[in-house]
Amino acid sequence: MDFKDTLTLIKDDLEKVEKAIGKYFESDVEIIPTIGSYLFFGGGKRIRPVMVLMSSRLCGYDGEDRHIAHSCVVEFLHTATLLHDDVIDASPKRRGNPSANSKWGNEVCVLVGDFLFAKSFDIMAHDGDSRMLRILSDTCLRMAEGEVLQQVNVCNLKLTEDEYVNIIERKTATLISTCCRLGAVLGGASADEEKALASFGLNVGMAFQLVDDYLDYTADEERLGKPTGTDLREGNITFPLILLYENCNSEQRSRIGHFVENGEVNPQDIKELTELMAEQNVFQRVEARAVDYIKRAKSELAVFDSGSPYLDGLHAVADFVIERDL
Amino acid sequence: MDFKDTLTLIKDDLEKVEKAIGKYFESDVEIIPTIGSYLFFGGGKRIRPVMVLMSSRLCGYDGEDRHIAHSCVVEFLHTATLLHDDVIDASPKRRGNPSANSKWGNEVCVLVGDFLFAKSFDIMAHDGDSRMLRILSDTCLRMAEGEVLQQVNVCNLKLTEDEYVNIIERKTATLISTCCRLGAVLGGASADEEKALASFGLNVGMAFQLVDDYLDYTADEERLGKPTGTDLREGNITFPLILLYENCNSEQRSRIGHFVENGEVNPQDIKELTELMAEQNVFQRVEARAVDYIKRAKSELAVFDSGSPYLDGLHAVADFVIERDL
Repeated sequence: MDFKDTLTLIKDDLEKVEKAIGKYFESDVEIIPTIGSYLFFGGGKRIRPVMVLMSSRLCGYDGEDRHIAHSCVVEFLHTATLLHDDVIDASPKRRGNPSANSKWGNEVCVLVGDFLFAKSFDIMAHDGDSRMLRILSDTCLRMAEGEVLQQVNVCNLKLTEDEYVNIIERKTATLISTCCRLGAVLGGASADEEKALASFGLNVGMAFQLVDDYLDYTADEERLGKPTGTDLREGNITFPLILLYENCNSEQRSRIGHFVENGEVNPQDIKELTELMAEQNVFQRVEARAVDYIKRAKSELAVFDSGSPYLDGLHAVADFVIERDL
Repeated sequence: MDFKDTLTLIKDDLEKVEKAIGKYFESDVEIIPTIGSYLFFGGGKRIRPVMVLMSSRLCGYDGEDRHIAHSCVVEFLHTATLLHDDVIDASPKRRGNPSANSKWGNEVCVLVGDFLFAKSFDIMAHDGDSRMLRILSDTCLRMAEGEVLQQVNVCNLKLTEDEYVNIIERKTATLISTCCRLGAVLGGASADEEKALASFGLNVGMAFQLVDDYLDYTADEERLGKPTGTDLREGNITFPLILLYENCNSEQRSRIGHFVENGEVNPQDIKELTELMAEQNVFQRVEARAVDYIKRAKSELAVFDSGSPYLDGLHAVADFVIERDL
């Protein structure tokens, strides 16, 4: 089963998620639905809702709406983070389109991000399951800590691999883990199944961020929807750069230091760095690590009886994360 | 009873709130407790916790900790909003000290604001009362909408009195209303009592913001902790300016338009505007409106039997809101 086939499994649910997103964004403050439509209907992959939906169905959830509501919650939390990230980085582009902050200004976008956080909690509060709420609030705390940690390490070329792993676990993998865990709780899974799905999601999330950080250097710009080397320009030290920096000579190090400090990096510089990374087998090593996370993720799912199409679906999502080229 | 006497009524509770704030701010991401200490122990008045504590005691709450936890929640939500406001306005000062964003940068402060939102929800989620959670999540949504509404009306000299009232109700009064309402729920108040306290808080909150907006023009700069006329410089159209603009000639209007558009206003300009406002009785009119809200607020409390020191305490808080000079 490939990723596309997977989506047909939950086609009706995904359509309901799209409708629900639009509805939750209603507000008499007109700019909120305007920015909402721009953010949510500009081509996201909905990986997080897919994880919620698929996990809940795997665990036997047969309801109509709670998995939809929680899919919206995780997508809103994710989008609030993106919005605040873009403001912080003053990013001009997101998914090939002008970023919301470049269209409506940083000020409004900080506040619409806050609206999204508030809306997420409002949906959860009205759902009323206190354990799911605690899982989500703990997740938000960890995400916020991860974002702060990333920010205080901007331009820090001494960032270690372990510190990098800690950051991406908090800022990315925790939410993806939570998506799967919420699905488990919705489906009334056993403690073992819930733990397995949480660990599956965590490992998929780690691979997801590793691939993201890798694609930031190697992807086709048009497909990436923004220039390559954006992380470098923003002083965001990711795994490819950590590996390169560890293994290059002092002249190359001082050149990298200059790029990171100044943020003024032209496409030729990026090309040069990317070639250096390729020479040092950096991308192979990052990819191998991502593949390793995906293997671990899949092995966690052994707790479930084979035969469920949703189990195959989760395997396909995991494969997609490392096979995607954008 | 004056405001100081009021505070002695809930002295022990307030001390517990201070300790709890410090504890909730713990994180292995070091900059979070650092910024937390700076934000929370830099001299806030704790009006919102006072409202929670006093209302809960008035309604017979005799527990040890839930009113403390909810006091922290409302103070954190308020502080998150201040932090994001300061980032948006690029404010250099807050309460006479350098603002957090001027010390640590806008980027980290957006994210620490997000941490505060997450922490608030985490405290609520662990408290586990679903009705209080819904009250708070609705409040957060209204606050976020109010903030967005204020932002889209920056520099809008056509802002009407009704639109202004709508903005301050959402961005300020709703949270203060919620403080009182949470106290009522904690104390097991009747529906009438809860409604009365919510309305008391809403009216006090309206007066509070009116006085804030008035003091922004008239206060002693040293006591205000920032230059007067900050709202004008930031293009934030408040009630004094709305009243003045309605009643001045076209030359004065174009001068005000110039100030608002450019944000370049020197102390002499502010002095001139403030004198013009005084001539037009603007401050008297704003003050009268605030006094009116406080009267309405107090009348709501008639539902409670007189004799409780906490009832006197709430009256004293209401009086303090209009009598304060900072």
